[in-house]
Order: sequence, then structure tokens, then C-alpha cells
Amino acid sequence: MRKYDQIAGFNRQRIEAISDGVFAIALTLLILDIKVPVSETIHGEKDLLKAFVGLAPKLLSYFLSFMTLGIYWSAHSSQFHYISKSDRHLNWINLFFLLFVSVIPFTTAFLSEFITFKFAIFIYWLNLTLLGGMLALNWRYAKKNQFLSLNESELVRVSSAIKRRIIEAQSLYSIGAVLCFFNTYLSIAVFIAIQLHYALAISFCRNK
Amino acid sequence: MRKYDQIAGFNRQRIEAISDGVFAIALTLLILDIKVPVSETIHGEKDLLKAFVGLAPKLLSYFLSFMTLGIYWSAHSSQFHYISKSDRHLNWINLFFLLFVSVIPFTTAFLSEFITFKFAIFIYWLNLTLLGGMLALNWRYAKKNQFLSLNESELVRVSSAIKRRIIEAQSLYSIGAVLCFFNTYLSIAVFIAIQLHYALAISFCRNK
Amino acid sequence: MRKYDQIAGFNRQRIEAISDGVFAIALTLLILDIKVPVSETIHGEKDLLKAFVGLAPKLLSYFLSFMTLGIYWSAHSSQFHYISKSDRHLNWINLFFLLFVSVIPFTTAFLSEFITFKFAIFIYWLNLTLLGGMLALNWRYAKKNQFLSLNESELVRVSSAIKRRIIEAQSLYSIGAVLCFFNTYLSIAVFIAIQLHYALAISFCRNK
Amino acid sequence: MRKYDQIAGFNRQRIEAISDGVFAIALTLLILDIKVPVSETIHGEKDLLKAFVGLAPKLLSYFLSFMTLGIYWSAHSSQFHYISKSDRHLNWINLFFLLFVSVIPFTTAFLSEFITFKFAIFIYWLNLTLLGGMLALNWRYAKKNQFLSLNESELVRVSSAIKRRIIEAQSLYSIGAVLCFFNTYLSIAVFIAIQLHYALAISFCRNK
Repeated sequence: MRKYDQIAGFNRQRIEAISDGVFAIALTLLILDIKVPVSETIHGEKDLLKAFVGLAPKLLSYFLSFMTLGIYWSAHSSQFHYISKSDRHLNWINLFFLLFVSVIPFTTAFLSEFITFKFAIFIYWLNLTLLGGMLALNWRYAKKNQFLSLNESELVRVSSAIKRRIIEAQSLYSIGAVLCFFNTYLSIAVFIAIQLHYALAISFCRNK
Repeated sequence: MRKYDQIAGFNRQRIEAISDGVFAIALTLLILDIKVPVSETIHGEKDLLKAFVGLAPKLLSYFLSFMTLGIYWSAHSSQFHYISKSDRHLNWINLFFLLFVSVIPFTTAFLSEFITFKFAIFIYWLNLTLLGGMLALNWRYAKKNQFLSLNESELVRVSSAIKRRIIEAQSLYSIGAVLCFFNTYLSIAVFIAIQLHYALAISFCRNK
Repeated sequence: MRKYDQIAGFNRQRIEAISDGVFAIALTLLILDIKVPVSETIHGEKDLLKAFVGLAPKLLSYFLSFMTLGIYWSAHSSQFHYISKSDRHLNWINLFFLLFVSVIPFTTAFLSEFITFKFAIFIYWLNLTLLGGMLALNWRYAKKNQFLSLNESELVRVSSAIKRRIIEAQSLYSIGAVLCFFNTYLSIAVFIAIQLHYALAISFCRNK
Repeated sequence: MRKYDQIAGFNRQRIEAISDGVFAIALTLLILDIKVPVSETIHGEKDLLKAFVGLAPKLLSYFLSFMTLGIYWSAHSSQFHYISKSDRHLNWINLFFLLFVSVIPFTTAFLSEFITFKFAIFIYWLNLTLLGGMLALNWRYAKKNQFLSLNESELVRVSSAIKRRIIEAQSLYSIGAVLCFFNTYLSIAVFIAIQLHYALAISFCRNK
């Protein structure tokens, strides 16, 4: 390893801090698209209600983007709960992860604007897949380089849970994406169902 | 509980960090609406004064949004002062809380644009109610799962103070909202009075 | 003191975190005003140079806003270096401070757009005065309530340095503002000189 | 040293926090330029694909800006890993560093809009050089004032690695910039190659 690489990227707390900053911006980015209706065209309560309902697609798209980012932020937070060290490579794996995080508002808005197009579903799925891939790479690299603060028995349990979750989630998203060859609305419904499942942990409520 | 759920969401510091990030953005979002007047139309000090006064509704709306968010941020900060642990559900309660935080600038701007409309007051009230509801849920869940770092006697005192505050504040807001059936300006005046009360703690000055 | 007030606002680290978030946004807000020139109107290196020079007022205004915010952020950071406790009132003093922080980009842009108007200088000066006032209040309140982690001899030294700095800076700004009755450019030159003085600590270099 | 200067700027954690905030905003700023295509002009999958390809220059420019900022953020994080103290001058060195950080999205967009202009390459190179210069100044000042938490042998090793990296990187950028007298595309290709080199540490993979 080159000299500089031996001294760079040690600061895992900074990785968490920049991640929270980028996530906070990405989470709130689509709110900028939701504009208050122009008051001149509104003459009564019904007009206002109608104008508000007209914002529904943008509100839904904001909600979808917030959920997606919430899921990946939670996953990132969980991984770093166990990661106690870092190096320059883990540093850059995380920066690439954040690059894909910051385009989620765009790919979500792209999907909700072109809701009947297979290409929009492909781009959205690609974004989710790159996020999942970077998370898998992050965990794998941290594990291989013994950056985790876990004893051996915990390591097996935690690591298998994290890996299974990533594979499970990304497989479900891929199935959802493939469904677009039947109907793009079906794909989107499956995406939303997967996200609500992870956000609300519906299965957890059932199993308990 | 499923395996992954047992290992996710432990990091309460990350919840605080993402919350501060989202709040910082929400606090400053409406400032983007306040544009410097176009200089071509301004020919003297009086014109400039008039143009500045013309910004007053936007400045007031910014102030209102800042106060509201300040109140809920303070409440969130107070709760997490006592919360020492977390799990995936507390994690998601907070993400939903942040979702409602990030739309406050929109609902405030919506209200200040349609100041004579009951529907605008309803939406604003709904937003405040959802925020209060998530805060109540957050505290209840943390208490039930023994995530609080309080001994038994403190727990009773702190918990009753937090609950009473939420019920009191949300009841006052609801009374304010109902007043819109008489006059929407009355509702808004009550909202502002409630917020100044909590921000400046006027009652505290009297009682001391 | 009311029950809820006894348990709220303890978390001084959260005050620092939300402050850094709001400052980071305020620091970078005016960069949004600096747009890349439209390429159709540019036919050679000279055109591009001219277009870039045309951006100079906006770049200068960005620089001025960045310096001002840097000065107040440094002052805030210095005060909190010694503040080890907090309560709900200190919490709200800081939120009002942040309210005045977040409008600095607006008042700076307002000043640079209306550089020959006394009213623009008054608004800018008012903003700086409110910032200085909140900082003074913050320190006074923290000192009075023994929130400072300083022994008695340090307390006298640090406290007199902080107070003197605020009085000195705000007096200089007020003198600068009054100069607008002669010439507004003179006021602005004095403002910039004061800010460079504090940022670069020119006097320090001389005195050492 | 003047009294106030002796008590200001001690808080190195605040410097890290404001830096992460400003970097997070700068990292995501160019995403605001990438707008979803207007749906009325899109009549089929091919149209959408074409419209997406039309976004490529903006996406590339976003990627370039993200990489550049990632490199300087990593360098800043590495330096502060060893810096354990601070004073008002280190504070201001960092604020000036952040000033140059926050204009990277602008200079990158400027370069990608005027890709055949020497002046655009000069501005971009100037920005990188100022960033490198502030980093060098930051390290030098911290070292001279014994703010580093390193024993003597480590100090030599770490310090020479940091200095060599800055000199090496800035020299490569300068060579790239000079190449614009042959062809501006050549300059840009060299810039991108340098950035990929540092982000992916390609040489590291070869050397291991």
C-alpha cells in the first residue's frame, strides 16, 4: 500500500456525518418541487381542494422518495453501528453510495413523470440496485478487513442477517421491475408494497 | 421478531443527526421564497421601503414556519435527552416524524397564501396534529420498551410533563382550528399566540 | 418554573448541531444566485471573460455573506466552547439567533442590489445588530445561570473578552452605518474593512 | 496576541461539523440542475431514452463535481484525524477552505458549459489550486503550532505523506491545465483521469 493510503480515511465518524448530511438533503429535495398553487385561480374552498388534489402526484412522489431513502439510511446506520474502523477504500465505497443516494429524488421524479414507461422503471430499479450493491460491498469490505466490533458468534448472526436482507430486498425489487413487461403500474405497486413492508415492518407485527 | 429487525436501528445518535439535518433544511426552506425586489422598478428610498413592506407576508410566513419548527425541534431534543436506546421501530417513528417536519414550510406557505380558506387551516392543523401524534408515539414507544435513562421517580415526573405538554399544545391548536368556522383570521391569530407562548414561555415569566 | 420547562432544552449538543446545520445552509445559500452564463451569447475567450466579470457583483455579495456568517459562526462556536449546560431559554435564544443568521444571505443580497440606498444599509445593520444582541444575550444568560465550565479567574478574563468583542464589533458596524448619511459606498467599505479585520485578524499579525 | 483571539476558535469538533455540512450541500448542489424532461414532448420509449441521453452532460458534470469534492473532503477528513487542537487562525483557514469548496459546483458547471474555452479551464484549475493551497496551509499551521496528536516518528511519516500528496496532486492538475494550450478536451481528460486515480486508487490495486 502506498504511503498516503496508509494514513487516509481512518475517520469513520466523519463518514457517518457526511452521510447524514447528504441523506438530509436528499430526503427533502423533492419538497422543492411542491409549489403552493397560484391564488388568482382559486375562488372558493372547492377550487382550493381541487388544486391541492392536483398536487397529489408530486406529494406521492415525495413520499416514495422519502420512504426509499429512509430504508437505505436505516440500512447504512445499522451497518455502521457495527463498523468501528475505516480506511480510504471504505471511505470511497461510502462516497459512491452517497452519489447514488443523492440521485434518488431525480430517479423517483423521473419515474412518477413517466409512469407508463419501461425505461423509467429500469432507471429506478438500476438506482436501487446500485444502492444495494454498494451496501453489500461496504459490509463485505468491512468484514474482510476486520473493521467490525463483533465477537465471532455475533459476527455470524449479524452478517448473515445483513446479507440476507440485501439479497431479499434487491431480489424483490428485481421481480417488481420485470413485471413492467406486463404492466408498469404493477411494477410500481410492487415497489411501493416492498417499501411499506420494510418501513412499517408489517411482517414483524404479524410474527410477534 | 425477525432476525434483521433484531440488529437494525440501534443507533440513536444517527437518529439525532439526521433529525438535525432535516430540521436545519426545513427551518431555512422558506427563505428561498423571499427574493430581493427587482432594482429597475425602484427609484428612491420610498420605493424601496414599499417594496420591502411588500415582502412582509413572506417574511411573516417564514417567521411562523421557523417558530413552529423550533417548537417541535425543541420537543424532539427534549425527548431524546432521555432516550438512551433505540430499535428499528423507534427509527421509523422518527423518520415519519421528519416527513411531517419537512412539509411544514409548504403547509405554512399554503396557509399564508390562502389565509381566508378553511381548507388551508385544516391542512395546517393536520400537519401539526401529525407532528404531535408522532412525538406522543415516540415517547410512548420508548417508555414501553424501557429505552429511557431515568430512574422510576424521575420517569413519572418527566413522562407526565411530556404527555401533558403534547395534549395541551395539540388541544390548543385544535381549538384554534375550530375557530375558523367563525373567522379564519381568528384561527391564525390563535395559532401565532400559541407559538409565541411556547417560544417565549411568557407564562414562565409570570409564574416565576 | 413550570414542570415542562424544567425538563426541556437540556441538550446543548443538539443546539450546536442545529446551529451548524443552519449555518452551513446560510453560508452556501447565495451560491444558488450565481448562474453559469448562457453559452449561446459567448463566441470567444473575451466574451467569456466579460461574462465572468459580469458575475463579479454576485460573487462579491457571496463573499461578503460568507465572511459575515463566518464571523458570527466563530463567535457562536467560541461561546459554546465554554457553555456546558443549557435550558429551554438558552435553547430559544439560540433559535432566534439562528433566525437572524438565516436571513443574512437575503439582507446581503438586498444591500448589494441597492448599494446606494440608505434603507438597504439600515436593514443590513439591523440584521448584524440583532445577531450581536442575541450573542450578548446568550452569553449573559449562560453566565447568570452558571452554565459555564470556567473557574472564577478564567470566567472574568473570558467574559470580559467576549463582551468587549461584541461591543467593539457592533459599535464599529454602527459607525459604518451612520456614515451612509455622507455616502453609502463609504458605509459598505467600512463594513467590508471590519469583516476582513475580524476574519484575517490583521491587527493580530501586527501585534505579535 | 489580543485577548479575544486567545479564547476563540478552540472547538475543532465544530470545524469538522460545519465542514461536513458545507460539503454535504456542495456535493448535492448540481443535482438541482438536473430536471426531469417535460412529458408532453415524449411519445414513446425511444423519445424518453433520447431525452435521458440529453441529460448526460449535466449528469457527467454532477459526477465530476462529486468526485472532486469527495477527494478534498477525504483529504480534509484525513488531516483532522490527526489535528486535536485548534485556534482562531486554524478556524479561519478552514472557513476559507470551505468558501472554495462551495464554489466547486459552479466552476465545474462553468467548465462543462464552456468545454472548449481556456478561460474555463483556468478558473477550474484556480479553484483546485486554492483548495490545495488551503489544505497545505491548514496542515502547516497545525504542525507548526503543535496541534497534532502524533508522536515524533509518526509525525515525520504522516506529514511527509500528506505534503507529498498535495504537491503531487496539484502538480498533476497544473500539467493538465497547461495542456489546454494544445487542446481543452485533453486537459479535461487529464483532470478526470487524475480524479478517478485518487477516487479508485488504481495504482494501489496494482502495487499491492
